[in-house]
Amino acid sequence: MLQPQRLLREMFDAAVGAATSAVCLPPFLPPAPVNGRLIVIGAGKGAAEMARVVEGHYPGPLSGVVVTRYGHGAPCQRIEVLEASHPVPDAAGVAAARRILDCVAGLGADDLVLCLISGGGSALLALPADGVTLADKQAINQALLASGATIAEINCVRKHLSTIKGGRLALACAPARVVTLVISDVPGDDPALVASGPTLADAGTCADARAILARYRIALPAAARALLDSGAGETPKPGDVRFARNSVQVIASNRLALDAAAAVARAAGITAHILADDIEGEARDIALMHASLARAVVSHGAPFARPCVILSGGETTVTVGGSGRGGRNTEFLLALGLALDGHAGIDAIACDTDGIDGSEDNAGALLGPDSLARAQAHGLRARAMLDNNDGYSFFQALGDLVVCGPTLTNVNDFRAILIV
Amino acid sequence: MLQPQRLLREMFDAAVGAATSAVCLPPFLPPAPVNGRLIVIGAGKGAAEMARVVEGHYPGPLSGVVVTRYGHGAPCQRIEVLEASHPVPDAAGVAAARRILDCVAGLGADDLVLCLISGGGSALLALPADGVTLADKQAINQALLASGATIAEINCVRKHLSTIKGGRLALACAPARVVTLVISDVPGDDPALVASGPTLADAGTCADARAILARYRIALPAAARALLDSGAGETPKPGDVRFARNSVQVIASNRLALDAAAAVARAAGITAHILADDIEGEARDIALMHASLARAVVSHGAPFARPCVILSGGETTVTVGGSGRGGRNTEFLLALGLALDGHAGIDAIACDTDGIDGSEDNAGALLGPDSLARAQAHGLRARAMLDNNDGYSFFQALGDLVVCGPTLTNVNDFRAILIV
Repeated sequence: MLQPQRLLREMFDAAVGAATSAVCLPPFLPPAPVNGRLIVIGAGKGAAEMARVVEGHYPGPLSGVVVTRYGHGAPCQRIEVLEASHPVPDAAGVAAARRILDCVAGLGADDLVLCLISGGGSALLALPADGVTLADKQAINQALLASGATIAEINCVRKHLSTIKGGRLALACAPARVVTLVISDVPGDDPALVASGPTLADAGTCADARAILARYRIALPAAARALLDSGAGETPKPGDVRFARNSVQVIASNRLALDAAAAVARAAGITAHILADDIEGEARDIALMHASLARAVVSHGAPFARPCVILSGGETTVTVGGSGRGGRNTEFLLALGLALDGHAGIDAIACDTDGIDGSEDNAGALLGPDSLARAQAHGLRARAMLDNNDGYSFFQALGDLVVCGPTLTNVNDFRAILIV
Repeated sequence: MLQPQRLLREMFDAAVGAATSAVCLPPFLPPAPVNGRLIVIGAGKGAAEMARVVEGHYPGPLSGVVVTRYGHGAPCQRIEVLEASHPVPDAAGVAAARRILDCVAGLGADDLVLCLISGGGSALLALPADGVTLADKQAINQALLASGATIAEINCVRKHLSTIKGGRLALACAPARVVTLVISDVPGDDPALVASGPTLADAGTCADARAILARYRIALPAAARALLDSGAGETPKPGDVRFARNSVQVIASNRLALDAAAAVARAAGITAHILADDIEGEARDIALMHASLARAVVSHGAPFARPCVILSGGETTVTVGGSGRGGRNTEFLLALGLALDGHAGIDAIACDTDGIDGSEDNAGALLGPDSLARAQAHGLRARAMLDNNDGYSFFQALGDLVVCGPTLTNVNDFRAILIV
């Protein structure tokens, strides 16, 4: 007997499992250098856990420093783990960036730098360029986050006002070879967009950064402005010979997680269809389209035959107008529930693979055909709660939150709709 | 050699063609009554064209009155065609409703009333209940349209403040039998939602209408309030014996149109996948999800293999923040173009099947891989134009508008994305 919500939860667990460092990192680890040193650096919410796995992989000597978000540490013996603030950088992030640059100073051509990158690294590796203060960077960062700029645009500006981003960290490692391994939390999985690509050549220019600031009407302090106007903030460009021996690999992505979940569904005899791994847009509108697809499967046996599970990922957004609690996944799921209106035979899960949906303690939640009716019995007004961005409270009252704690990885949103 | 945009245009033309009255209406027309009279009534943007086709079908005697939107008339000989205002009702709509009620007064059990319903009929058939003025109805209508209420909610209120909606027109026809034929422009194709179901029993109640007005904080004039509070505004309910001999058929729907377009694609050797026919949500967010799906087809050969065409329909919305020109279909298409960013091998069309996207002269537009580049060459700033809700100007400048004039039918949005 199929237990829909149990299967959906197993699919989510498999998705996260496939993207954890212990599983996805070892196959990509290079041999330790024969004559040189092995230096491990990194930044991101998963950096400490990645470092822990690296330590377990290499029995020989290694050393290094990684920086992660407060509370995202993991026990390491030989690699120093620092913690700093995200999403707005703090002085600890500046100190961490300095420590990492110190750590790669004076390396030789036989040395190997292993750079472990995951989402959040951009804020955690904060080393403003000369003349730009941390307070300047914080203000620019907050203005960009509030402006509606895309993550690519935000990173373009960051890269041109930094001493470490946009490939400069790799230059600091020279002449050592740099192997960069990336857990991608960005739609499209461009590694240069994760953590502002500190070890990767950068196609963007100071002129691009100026255009972005103009588009969103963001003013800069004089020193920052001078960096862009003079071209002193320019980043190393693709084709730069100094990057010739380096390599980069995306070791985990939303697609990897969705594929793992699809395998769980198939093992349970359910056909799985992955719609896309890079869906962006307002969570409640994306929910409406998922609802239409699920109804079409029931009503028309198309575009997919029943039973099936529809999987999707990416990074939705929530334009907050209310004062409720919850992240984009409970917002998606509550909107989906309202659109499906108790439709029989349709269950769903929506979770953030980092284990934290927004700023609450849950990864996401589960939805069933009876969710709305149970909510009504609890005296909950579902529509009003969606209007108030209060998805967390809705699913909390039903006891249907998915709570797993920080997963120490992040490949963005995970959604699955099971239609029997 | 496949010409993508030519094929897409042929698909749209086929979609509209399948939903035109001349094609979809005749198979559903009942035999003329043997002993009684044949009375034709109707309301909606397609009502005059439906009446024209009905006249052509029945050589014998018939008479009647239909009301359509200003400018949506069609040449009729025996059925009177009236025109009135949409979407906010005017005095001509009130006069039309009275004429239609006069026309069905005093009928006998052998008489047959053929009621021709299409989208827009709700505003066109305006006969406020006793004590409610046209000005009251206009104000309530505008408040509802601006409130964010769904069409089902708007119609629930309308039905309980009307002398003709929510089944009352059918009661006025009694004891004659009423056959209602509906061209559906509502997601989900519930015939009771098209034109506020003047001939159909109504499951909603005065209490529902009160709850909706409370939800959107819309105040009512005293007379209207009294109708809802006293229950005097109550509509006939499903199971009412007075509806026992009546029937209703949805003769055209978004699905019918999408199926016709799919057949055109298949004839050209392209597999067609209909995602769903009832997609609602903000046009630019729905575009992002379509873009993700199209990219997934290219990158992963899933959820569909190339070459293929992805079809979808429904009714998106545009939350207007800018001052540009255009309806939801050019808005969708411009957002799609920006998200696809010139992706090779992907062409698209988005049009309103009524031939008018919003309040412009176009049905929609076409998008190709070179649209953004051509726009840039024209000095157009695509992102800024989307921000300004200026999709019409964008595609007008490219010469890529689809202009066909009013089609005299309406089964809502038509979208097709061809991926080769």
